[in-house]
Amino acid sequence: MSDEPACPVPLPPPAGEVVMGHGGGGRLSHRLLEEVLLPAFDHPALHARDDQAVVDVGGQALAFSTDAFVVSPLFFPGGDVGELAVNGTVNDLACAGARPLYLSAAFVLEEGLPLADLARVVASMRRAAQAAGVAVVTGDTKVVQRGKGDGLYVTTSGVGLLPPGARRLTAAACREGDRVLVSGTLGDHGVAVLAARERLGLGDELRSDTAPLFELAQALLAAAPATRCLRDPTRGGLAAALVELGQRAGLAAELEEARLPVSGPARGALELLGLDPLFVANEGKLCAVVPPGEVDAALAAWRAHPLGRHAADVGRFVAGRPGGLTVRTAIGGRRTVELPLTDPLPRIC
Amino acid sequence: MSDEPACPVPLPPPAGEVVMGHGGGGRLSHRLLEEVLLPAFDHPALHARDDQAVVDVGGQALAFSTDAFVVSPLFFPGGDVGELAVNGTVNDLACAGARPLYLSAAFVLEEGLPLADLARVVASMRRAAQAAGVAVVTGDTKVVQRGKGDGLYVTTSGVGLLPPGARRLTAAACREGDRVLVSGTLGDHGVAVLAARERLGLGDELRSDTAPLFELAQALLAAAPATRCLRDPTRGGLAAALVELGQRAGLAAELEEARLPVSGPARGALELLGLDPLFVANEGKLCAVVPPGEVDAALAAWRAHPLGRHAADVGRFVAGRPGGLTVRTAIGGRRTVELPLTDPLPRIC
Repeated sequence: MSDEPACPVPLPPPAGEVVMGHGGGGRLSHRLLEEVLLPAFDHPALHARDDQAVVDVGGQALAFSTDAFVVSPLFFPGGDVGELAVNGTVNDLACAGARPLYLSAAFVLEEGLPLADLARVVASMRRAAQAAGVAVVTGDTKVVQRGKGDGLYVTTSGVGLLPPGARRLTAAACREGDRVLVSGTLGDHGVAVLAARERLGLGDELRSDTAPLFELAQALLAAAPATRCLRDPTRGGLAAALVELGQRAGLAAELEEARLPVSGPARGALELLGLDPLFVANEGKLCAVVPPGEVDAALAAWRAHPLGRHAADVGRFVAGRPGGLTVRTAIGGRRTVELPLTDPLPRIC
Repeated sequence: MSDEPACPVPLPPPAGEVVMGHGGGGRLSHRLLEEVLLPAFDHPALHARDDQAVVDVGGQALAFSTDAFVVSPLFFPGGDVGELAVNGTVNDLACAGARPLYLSAAFVLEEGLPLADLARVVASMRRAAQAAGVAVVTGDTKVVQRGKGDGLYVTTSGVGLLPPGARRLTAAACREGDRVLVSGTLGDHGVAVLAARERLGLGDELRSDTAPLFELAQALLAAAPATRCLRDPTRGGLAAALVELGQRAGLAAELEEARLPVSGPARGALELLGLDPLFVANEGKLCAVVPPGEVDAALAAWRAHPLGRHAADVGRFVAGRPGGLTVRTAIGGRRTVELPLTDPLPRIC
């Protein structure tokens, strides 16, 4: 990336301590990335700010991604940490247009975790890997003392191959006028985990949407070959994904509130909790940025797939403050959305 | 692997809880792998029991490895968790004969960690990556509450390429009569971390040996092209590496105690602590299994490199109980070595 400094000036050591918000999808999280992590590692693949790197390996374009999973509780309606860990990394690879191939799994176990829980998590990882057509081929297991962990953390990394000559799907490719599509209802994962953790008794209809999204990504790319960029809007929700894309592309995003798909059970729970579905994590949804001429084909392709039945065109990118986000309300008003400093829902993935 | 069941019989859920020993390099750790993890993931690359997978990606042989690092303290004489995390994954790739190319880094931070400590760790990772000729290209950061972590855990994964047509270096390739070589002194890392953690005041000469081993691996493979297998004997030390190789190869290992290189400071500290250098972790040493005819060339190649000056031929593989390990003592006796059930040194990597 020619617009990035080749060698950043060394920074003074940052003051302060890590707070929960550094791990959310909000502004503190972005600041940590920009002030501590990116200057240190300084690689074009990182500056691209996509959810995976695409690197050359012997003349082939390899997608490579990693995610640490610290979700609490480990088991929740609709899934568990193991399924989440496999799908999360598979989806980051799929968002590059890659076919996910191989995963690694590294566990940090807390002394005292029931071995039956570990077995249940790995069985779930196995099923998720089979469903996604990938294999877990390497791993590591470490154990920490009681009070130095929380049952089980797992980090999955994955590699996948892009088809020869495939166009790069990247934030910087978004253009003014491009439409923003989502493949289904928003907020299901975050609200299901929160309800399970806090034992909110909101009924058993709230379920995580965790799912592998490779087929949905491929269906879209076949139907809408000029697609600019794909994201799975996890931590920080759709809002965080659009702000990040906009910052990188130098554009603002504008959403139509009435078009945002939210399931009935999630809507009720979100209202009760005072949470905006825009900020709540999804684990089985794609957000695509496509040129206007390909919107109909894209939506038709998604809606033909069981995971894309509620796909919708929810807004667009416009000229404006890079990373700005406004929402046009159903009654014709407009509100500016700022990412929260911290995360309203810690440890949901 | 034709000798592995294609689809294991489902196991009853294991009883009991995770204990510290499940994370060591001892027998409990092996049992966890064999009873819980391998049956679930069941892939030839895992059953090969090497420290990395070698998989086909578009017709090329890609090495892929992952390691979680939970070392305590984060900073210790001779290194820190960041340097360790980069070198550890680089070395697992190098042991396949691959050139390490790209790394990922996933952090689990505990609320309250000084940001300056994080910055120090990532700066150290950057330096280590530059020294090893790799780039950190993708990452993730999660935060957990106080009392749910221990400052910082980091998982690195890495990919590397094997040269076209390269022979597979794998445990199953070891043969009766093959010699066991080590590239230098044993036990330096484990004893340095233990001394720092327990504030043993054993003097400032104890230093971790953490180092990138790609050059040493390549020098060996050029000089001794029939090399069967390479390991970096980390957790569990040389003993754990040889037991694992022997189990897989159907052979026993026999070491000559007088030939095992141990540095002066480490020897003093190990004796004081009652620890056997065979069981103590190294983070900058290779163990190679080579046919007898290539021993001299292999040792000469290693000794010509600054990291291999103390390379030695320390024993051999013989017919016998698979995974058995005996040590011939300086005075002509023999002792049978059993891996400890648990790890004498928890959380040293």
